[in-house]
This record gives sequence, C-alpha cells and structure tokens, in this order.
Amino acid sequence: MLSKAKTKLITSLLNKKYREQHQLFRVEGSNNVLDFLHGGLEAVEIFASGTWIELHGSDIGNIRTHEVGEMEMKKITSLTSPSEVLALFKLPVQHTATPKRPETLTLMLDDIKDPGNLGTMIRTADWFGIRQVICSQATTDAYSPKVVQASMGSLARVSVRYTHLASYLSGLPVDLPVYGALLEGTSLHEIRHSGPGIILIGSEAHGISTTLLPHITHRITIPPGSTLSSGNAESLNASMAAAIICYELSKNSLVQ
Amino acid sequence: MLSKAKTKLITSLLNKKYREQHQLFRVEGSNNVLDFLHGGLEAVEIFASGTWIELHGSDIGNIRTHEVGEMEMKKITSLTSPSEVLALFKLPVQHTATPKRPETLTLMLDDIKDPGNLGTMIRTADWFGIRQVICSQATTDAYSPKVVQASMGSLARVSVRYTHLASYLSGLPVDLPVYGALLEGTSLHEIRHSGPGIILIGSEAHGISTTLLPHITHRITIPPGSTLSSGNAESLNASMAAAIICYELSKNSLVQ
Repeated sequence: MLSKAKTKLITSLLNKKYREQHQLFRVEGSNNVLDFLHGGLEAVEIFASGTWIELHGSDIGNIRTHEVGEMEMKKITSLTSPSEVLALFKLPVQHTATPKRPETLTLMLDDIKDPGNLGTMIRTADWFGIRQVICSQATTDAYSPKVVQASMGSLARVSVRYTHLASYLSGLPVDLPVYGALLEGTSLHEIRHSGPGIILIGSEAHGISTTLLPHITHRITIPPGSTLSSGNAESLNASMAAAIICYELSKNSLVQ
Repeated sequence: MLSKAKTKLITSLLNKKYREQHQLFRVEGSNNVLDFLHGGLEAVEIFASGTWIELHGSDIGNIRTHEVGEMEMKKITSLTSPSEVLALFKLPVQHTATPKRPETLTLMLDDIKDPGNLGTMIRTADWFGIRQVICSQATTDAYSPKVVQASMGSLARVSVRYTHLASYLSGLPVDLPVYGALLEGTSLHEIRHSGPGIILIGSEAHGISTTLLPHITHRITIPPGSTLSSGNAESLNASMAAAIICYELSKNSLVQ
C-alpha cells in the first residue's frame, strides 16, 4: 500500500524544484531500474509488483521495497502503460565542472531543450565511450523522467554536469580541439581526429550561441547529399548531428 | 470563425482512420506549412491568424483561407503552444511500391513505432539526398501530426510508401546491396559503398524481423567506443543508427 504522503512525494519528483529539494529522481521500467542499480547509483526506495520483487531479490539487496498493485502504479507512473517497477534514486552529487583536459572525447551541449534529444544524446555518448557530457545551464534537466527514459540507463554511466560554457571553455588547455557543429565549416569527411577533444552541439532552434563561437578551434559541417539542387532539409536534428560527429571522431580512438 | 463541423473535421484528422476517409492530413507551424506548399503538395484549406495571412498572400495563392483567432486555434492545435497557421493537405496518392532498382540510396524501415523517430528519419533521409523511404505495414503512419512535425517539411520532398517488405525485397535485382543494421556484422568503418542500395533499419524494440534477414547482403554494425570494458549502452536509438549509416554510405555518392 502506498500512503498519500508517499504518492505525493513520488509525483512531486516530476518537477525539478522538488527533485532538488529532496535530492531524489525517479526511474521507471525494469531494464532502466536494473541499469541504474548496476551503474552504482544509490537507490533509496523501490515500488514494484510482487512478481518483480520475487524475480529481482538479489538486485534489490537491502533497499527498502514496497509491493504495489497495478492501480497504485497507475497513480505514480509517468508512462502511458505503467511498468512493473519505479525506483527513487539519490541525485548524483553535482561536482563543480572544473575545466581540465578530458581523457577522451567530451560532448558539450549548448541549451538543448528537448528532453528526448538530451536522453538520446547521453545514450549515444555512452555507446561511443564518451564518459562526460557538459551542459549549459539552460539545457533541460537530465534527471527529468523523459530524459531518464530516453537515456535507457546510460545516465548511470555517463557523468552529466551543468556549467557556464564560455567560462569552462576559457579554462581549457589551448591545444585541446573544440569541434563546433555548424552549417558552414570543414566537411566532417575531411576531419582526422584522435584523442581527447570537445564536440560542441548547439540548441535545436538557435544553434551554437555566438558567445561560444570564438572558442571553437574547428568549425565542422555534415555535408548534405548530392541532390541539394532539388532542395533538401535545412538542417539535421541536433541529436542526429551529435551522433554522426561522435561516430566519425571516435573512429580513430578505436584503432589500437 | 470556425464552424463546429469544420472544427470537428480538423480534430478528426488526428486519427489515421479519418485521414484515410477524408484523404487529408494536417500541417502546423509557419515553416512547416510553407515547406509543404513549396514542396508541391496540394493544400485544400488554411486556418491562420490575420497577420500570417497578410504576410503570406503570395504563398497562399487561391487556396481557401480562414482567419482564426488565438482561442479558436487552441481548439484545433496539437501543439502545446499553438502556432499561427494550420493547413489541411491532400494525402499524396499511395502508388504501389513496385520493387525496382533505386537511383540512389533507399531507407527501409521495419516496424518503426515511434512517430518522433520516423519523422526524424525522414528528415535525415532528406538531408542526405535520399528520396525514398519504404516502410513495413506496421510502421507508424507518416501523416500523423507528430511525424509531420518531426519531419520539418522533409515529408514534402521524400516519398514514403508502405508495403510488405519481404515481398518487396524479393523483387529487387539480386546485385543490389541491402545493408542491414545489426548488433553483429562488419564494422561500418570498413564499408566502402557508392551508388544505389538499401539501408534496412529494424524496430526500436525488436530490431530487424527474422523473415527479412535472408534478404540482407551486408550485415553491418556501428562499432561502440573503446571503453566497452566498463560497460556501455546496449544499443543505439534506431534513428541515430539510421543517421550514422546514411552519413557513412552517402559519403562516396558525394564525390563528383
């Protein structure tokens, strides 16, 4: 049984203000919850069906766990079809993002507004072995249910920090390449990269902020297809651009 | 002023059944509507603010146009913040998808369920000069408001057809390469492609259907980053995979 107070707490966490107040965030869905548990994040409470609890006893360990019925789950879910489990995790401590040479590629996001885009970009970063995503302060919150959902557990493995991007970039070693995704620049086909670097992706509506442009060392562009003459898309979706650039720039990091 | 009957017609088009019955679909937002108008699709009616109508007289031509107020727009919009214009377009005639050698790359989608993914893939195809998207019959409808929105006008330039994929693939010339995106296969880094071919992308949840696997001539995989040992994402989002493969395979089509 879920008390009224508990139901209220869980639903309040749909809101960033309350996530920060309680220092908690919600994760839904069996795969997601297991990914976060194994990713080393600290769960404080689990709400699940009896079957799920029985099946996952060893994953649960001594985390406080409540058996909830389908009707109760419907009250707290943010999904169209409620899953078997919802867990509350502690928000990771937001270490200050101190500018320093990263060990691998870093994804930097300037005011990404769409939670689905942010979640997918975190998942893409994870796939390509990128362990750090640095976001501008106006980027949508990584711990909102939609981002958590779209990141498919990758948020448990990738560190996401929020900071003032211009200051951060100013503090980086001058020889570190900063690749900016723009509509005009060197074709991505011609870029040969290996080692650490920054991949800077602008917002869906406005691209990269003008204040950040001076920090870009390599302006890059993803060449459109050859039938440009008949007209084509004006731009790529921000998360598509991020995926393609992460793919291309991580190519040489693979060759050992 | 919008009559009750007109309001009912417009909102009924949120539903596939009524789109097919009336052979109409909805487009919202100024850029989107203009893209569809210029893309050569036939608009039958426009609902817009007075300012929009004044500004776009030459785009409107002799299409029947209704001036509607903000409150009326709120009743018919599918967006969180209603835009200045909503237009009804005729559904393009669904020509039967006859298997034949395509002139360029073709994107083939097997049961894509998420409208945002489908819309983004149509936009990506458009960017890379791919003019044809062939979908399985269970792929989500391309003319639903969410797909139209996410495609950002690209649906006006890219032909999207629905067919039985196995039969379609059986009818293609045997020497046409069919690239299947799988978790195991030749690394995409090693693929050298030019000319026409099929890029086959599986569904978000189940990948490529087993019945289609025999038709694949090249199994390809997008190599994950080098920190696999510390665990990483189990897969890439379907539309990210599509974007990366379209990018890589269209590289050589560009060199003139």
